[in-house]
Amino acid sequence: MTDVATNMRLKLPITCFILQIILIILFGVLVQYDQETDAKAWHNQSHSDYENDFYFRYPSFQDVHVMIFIGFGFLMTFLQRYGFSSVGFNFLIAAFSIQWATLMQGFFHGMHGGKIHIGVESMINADFCTGAVLISFGAVLGKTSPVQLLIMAIFEVTLFSVNEFVLLSALGAKDAGGSMTIHTFGAYFGLMVTRVLYRPNLNKSQHRNSSVYHSDMFAMIGTIYLWMFWPSFNSAVTAHGDDQHRTAMNTYYSLAACTLATYGMSAITAHDGKLDMVHIQNAALAGGVAAGTAGEMMLTPYGSMIVGFLAGIISVLGFKYLSPILEDKLKIQDTCGVHNLHGMPGVLGAIVGAVTAAVATTDVYGKGMSDVFPDVASGDIEASFQGVRQAISLAVTLGIALLGGLIVGFILKIPIFGAPSDSICFEDNIYWEVPGEEESHGDQLTAVNTEEAEKLNS
Amino acid sequence: MTDVATNMRLKLPITCFILQIILIILFGVLVQYDQETDAKAWHNQSHSDYENDFYFRYPSFQDVHVMIFIGFGFLMTFLQRYGFSSVGFNFLIAAFSIQWATLMQGFFHGMHGGKIHIGVESMINADFCTGAVLISFGAVLGKTSPVQLLIMAIFEVTLFSVNEFVLLSALGAKDAGGSMTIHTFGAYFGLMVTRVLYRPNLNKSQHRNSSVYHSDMFAMIGTIYLWMFWPSFNSAVTAHGDDQHRTAMNTYYSLAACTLATYGMSAITAHDGKLDMVHIQNAALAGGVAAGTAGEMMLTPYGSMIVGFLAGIISVLGFKYLSPILEDKLKIQDTCGVHNLHGMPGVLGAIVGAVTAAVATTDVYGKGMSDVFPDVASGDIEASFQGVRQAISLAVTLGIALLGGLIVGFILKIPIFGAPSDSICFEDNIYWEVPGEEESHGDQLTAVNTEEAEKLNS
Amino acid sequence: MTDVATNMRLKLPITCFILQIILIILFGVLVQYDQETDAKAWHNQSHSDYENDFYFRYPSFQDVHVMIFIGFGFLMTFLQRYGFSSVGFNFLIAAFSIQWATLMQGFFHGMHGGKIHIGVESMINADFCTGAVLISFGAVLGKTSPVQLLIMAIFEVTLFSVNEFVLLSALGAKDAGGSMTIHTFGAYFGLMVTRVLYRPNLNKSQHRNSSVYHSDMFAMIGTIYLWMFWPSFNSAVTAHGDDQHRTAMNTYYSLAACTLATYGMSAITAHDGKLDMVHIQNAALAGGVAAGTAGEMMLTPYGSMIVGFLAGIISVLGFKYLSPILEDKLKIQDTCGVHNLHGMPGVLGAIVGAVTAAVATTDVYGKGMSDVFPDVASGDIEASFQGVRQAISLAVTLGIALLGGLIVGFILKIPIFGAPSDSICFEDNIYWEVPGEEESHGDQLTAVNTEEAEKLNS
Repeated sequence: MTDVATNMRLKLPITCFILQIILIILFGVLVQYDQETDAKAWHNQSHSDYENDFYFRYPSFQDVHVMIFIGFGFLMTFLQRYGFSSVGFNFLIAAFSIQWATLMQGFFHGMHGGKIHIGVESMINADFCTGAVLISFGAVLGKTSPVQLLIMAIFEVTLFSVNEFVLLSALGAKDAGGSMTIHTFGAYFGLMVTRVLYRPNLNKSQHRNSSVYHSDMFAMIGTIYLWMFWPSFNSAVTAHGDDQHRTAMNTYYSLAACTLATYGMSAITAHDGKLDMVHIQNAALAGGVAAGTAGEMMLTPYGSMIVGFLAGIISVLGFKYLSPILEDKLKIQDTCGVHNLHGMPGVLGAIVGAVTAAVATTDVYGKGMSDVFPDVASGDIEASFQGVRQAISLAVTLGIALLGGLIVGFILKIPIFGAPSDSICFEDNIYWEVPGEEESHGDQLTAVNTEEAEKLNS
Repeated sequence: MTDVATNMRLKLPITCFILQIILIILFGVLVQYDQETDAKAWHNQSHSDYENDFYFRYPSFQDVHVMIFIGFGFLMTFLQRYGFSSVGFNFLIAAFSIQWATLMQGFFHGMHGGKIHIGVESMINADFCTGAVLISFGAVLGKTSPVQLLIMAIFEVTLFSVNEFVLLSALGAKDAGGSMTIHTFGAYFGLMVTRVLYRPNLNKSQHRNSSVYHSDMFAMIGTIYLWMFWPSFNSAVTAHGDDQHRTAMNTYYSLAACTLATYGMSAITAHDGKLDMVHIQNAALAGGVAAGTAGEMMLTPYGSMIVGFLAGIISVLGFKYLSPILEDKLKIQDTCGVHNLHGMPGVLGAIVGAVTAAVATTDVYGKGMSDVFPDVASGDIEASFQGVRQAISLAVTLGIALLGGLIVGFILKIPIFGAPSDSICFEDNIYWEVPGEEESHGDQLTAVNTEEAEKLNS
Repeated sequence: MTDVATNMRLKLPITCFILQIILIILFGVLVQYDQETDAKAWHNQSHSDYENDFYFRYPSFQDVHVMIFIGFGFLMTFLQRYGFSSVGFNFLIAAFSIQWATLMQGFFHGMHGGKIHIGVESMINADFCTGAVLISFGAVLGKTSPVQLLIMAIFEVTLFSVNEFVLLSALGAKDAGGSMTIHTFGAYFGLMVTRVLYRPNLNKSQHRNSSVYHSDMFAMIGTIYLWMFWPSFNSAVTAHGDDQHRTAMNTYYSLAACTLATYGMSAITAHDGKLDMVHIQNAALAGGVAAGTAGEMMLTPYGSMIVGFLAGIISVLGFKYLSPILEDKLKIQDTCGVHNLHGMPGVLGAIVGAVTAAVATTDVYGKGMSDVFPDVASGDIEASFQGVRQAISLAVTLGIALLGGLIVGFILKIPIFGAPSDSICFEDNIYWEVPGEEESHGDQLTAVNTEEAEKLNS
């Protein structure tokens, strides 16, 4: 009764098993505990157990972890018949990506005697990289098979690691919260993929491409968790001490200001002065994205609030006016509006970061300069040049993301990965056993579901 | 199609933008990083980065943050057609209040050379103050516009800060978990506001003033998060070391005992011996409220359990017998029953705190007395006088809350803030674009919604 | 209108009040603050407040706490008409068990001058013990009254503590994440209880023993929280430093590999190549269970991944092929399939732990050996003998669990605890005031509910 093309009986198991077995082999050959997780190495040195980095990074890691699996997962459950896929495929591709990212990032971050050393910081970085994949997932949500998503993750994690290496290691840019590496990269990569995968007849599925009351409530769980833990996200891998502390606080105020801007803009732009859940669920988060680069800098609390305020305004305007244009004119079908939540706010964050870096002075940073801008502190470069580095990094990110998305988009077009046809997008039924809706009329509903599924697949 | 009176197209944006711009200006003029978040100041001193207070307060902060945004937000989603507003307005007024509270509390807690210094502890305090506003929100839930709520927040945050200053600084009381400053204040302020805003014809909306199966499930998310993280709430700003540790543990046992009392009382009082979700969702939390003042003291584990046990009993009895009386006789329409969850348990907590303080001895506290009761430790006062301070603090809190609520209630009555009429309370449709309920009969449902909205607004 | 047999008006209050009062008395007589929570004891020694164990265990504790109350609670909400009971009874028996476990474990872990000393570590251990009770709850879900569950908890907590004492203290086994003490014990205890409580006519309730769309979404909240925080669970009580760090990381990779295995196996075994929510919700967690014993050992990242991969495969196969056999042939009606999530993966974890312990060498562990295997480090025993200890521990656990479950099952059969009859299992309506489903047809639904309730109870 299921369409052969979208049947996952062999495609998905084969993909999962091959990938996992390759991961296990590569981990066996290449990966070792780092000094803080290895029993022998840790005890070979003289220090208190309490100095282990676990205690200074793990709470942040767990907050990031919640954002990746609950935050992203539930944010995408807003679609009326795609909740299983939203949270379920999010789960699958994140579980794959954190493993693959460990290898790719380990490779680029520098190996130790041919081995990749891992600990809590690499776990955070793997979750970060996964975040970019999930942003791209948002752009293609409802229109891709799980196999396509895994294939996309393979390439995107790789390109993310390349881009991250170029930015942080080669160019010496700073981007602790990933305005560029995560948000700008993930958004423009995903937008290009969805452009290449353009579906001219997607209007056949349009009636399912919207929310219902309860699905919007589930999506708010994702929104609120992302919002609450974004301070942990931006501060998770900054330098210890004042840096982590300041980054968390800047993000906190940026998000608060962004939220007021979002509510105001939503009421002014939406129908009859009523608030639109799409704006609240998404635009209120733009303040976290936009504080991703400059959050660790001496942005000041009111500077953070200005950044968040602008991000919220831009994001709502994007949902209201730009998304329809992108879809009609540029044929970019961006299901979750990642351009408005991650794309534009990410670019804004990159620009804010460049400007903030360019005006950094020892008068403001004191000896703390060496934590935030080590090359400026050492006298190797001027602060203004750090700003140039940041700007170049934004351009590089956009280039790699768009070019990468173009290529990967065409790879995903190969018609063997089980993508749904235009008339059965945004539908859990294709890939999941879906139960009926209510016990009291369970029989009828099941009947309806089965019938509809047959119709859909015929 | 929307009633002009409740149309938010101009009112809400103007309010949000003006408030946020004022906040940004005041932050620009008044607020600075404190010593632990400022790059220069932190690096000017000799200490390890690991000694930064971030590592000792931030995990507690995040737990409190979850309580404010998920806990309070979802606890109030129990109403069948008010989920968007419950979690959405909670989000809006909390995002405003944490900014405004930073300024108000900073002003009263003492400025440094004309500047307010902020860090993780001020963030926790801002979230605490926000908690009081959200408690008051619970009393007026379903009957107020978002503009009214923001106006209420402006005044309530200010009065909260005054009351907090009087209690903690002027009177020298102890109230780490805010039995008085947060719960008693927020509850009685909100009860007085809802009294002044009394709606004689609220029975016209009575059919929406109840839960449905799924809304009760969403509300349980809020309940459980509040319950789990209450130990972090009560211990978030106590002294480091044994104090934080003990406070968390006392609260843990108080809540556990409260839960058993709640289930027992619910079954004994409710219809046919069946459990009532209203009790479980609310009364099971009273143990956290009641441990708010004495939690940091040497209350002993079994003492904590007695307090929680009593709080649970009082709270269920309040829901069952007192709330109907308050509504019928005193015209207090308390949507969430905050009097039962925050009001009476808060007063109980204040009394327990006063008694526990009065009987404190050096024999029990040792040198730890200086953390908990510094004035007793220094010999300035007797323990019994600390008890008197605590008792006076309760009276002051009740006075400021009731008087403040009275004035603010009348301000909110000015008919320009877009409050709904009596027949359209507890209804998301007034302020939100509400999608249909199910895809399968999407068309009909949308029709129903539109029709109903027209009827409601005519 | 409610059946007299299942009426909780007196049974539940009496049980709750008697239990809570006994707990308060026993705590009053037996329990004291430990050195880290007692004001006098802590300040009697010279150390920084920052060295308090609170800062090194409390974040882990809170993650475990979320798993117990949100994770287990919502995981079980998958049933269509049993959401209130799943999360509500979970809440009740957990609130009781954490108190009772404090006493039982304190008694067996060694008293100090006749007193039980408590702090954050005892809180974690109490939550752990509660986890075992909740696993057993999963086996009998939908078929037991809250009074039965409390009676079960009384006995199970006691037997858990005995078994834990035998394993960790008498036998000297290691089991930080509880593959044996928590998962194997809880699962086989619960399976034996449900066997004894076998209901030959359960098919009369079969139409309610399945999920609906929204209940599966709620269950995913439980799943994802369990998955995310399992690294904290397994590492919560290991030695400080590299041990906690390594345990968390091993669990992270085990779970990721398990997830890919689960998706692959679900697609290959399920109907039409579609994914089955039961597998995703449960089997994806088996990697955490299976890393419970060996997680703290030098299992290596790829070793952890192999363990997780196998656990996922075994678990899905269990759901697909073994559960029906257990039900048909052995008359074990395992509602949540705890045998597949906790039973078999727990045994796998125990075996992996035994093997990993047996091959431990100083070459690999260095001075860290004393943290993981103190008796091997001290030279008292060979590593291979540690492996034997582990294997014996598994056998002891199975024995105590099965025998205990047998006895407790017969106790629960005494027909005075208000168990539902075979035709009204999996139904909230028996023990809860259940509201209607939707406002728009509220009247009809309420009517339906009342009618149905009458029919059910007649």
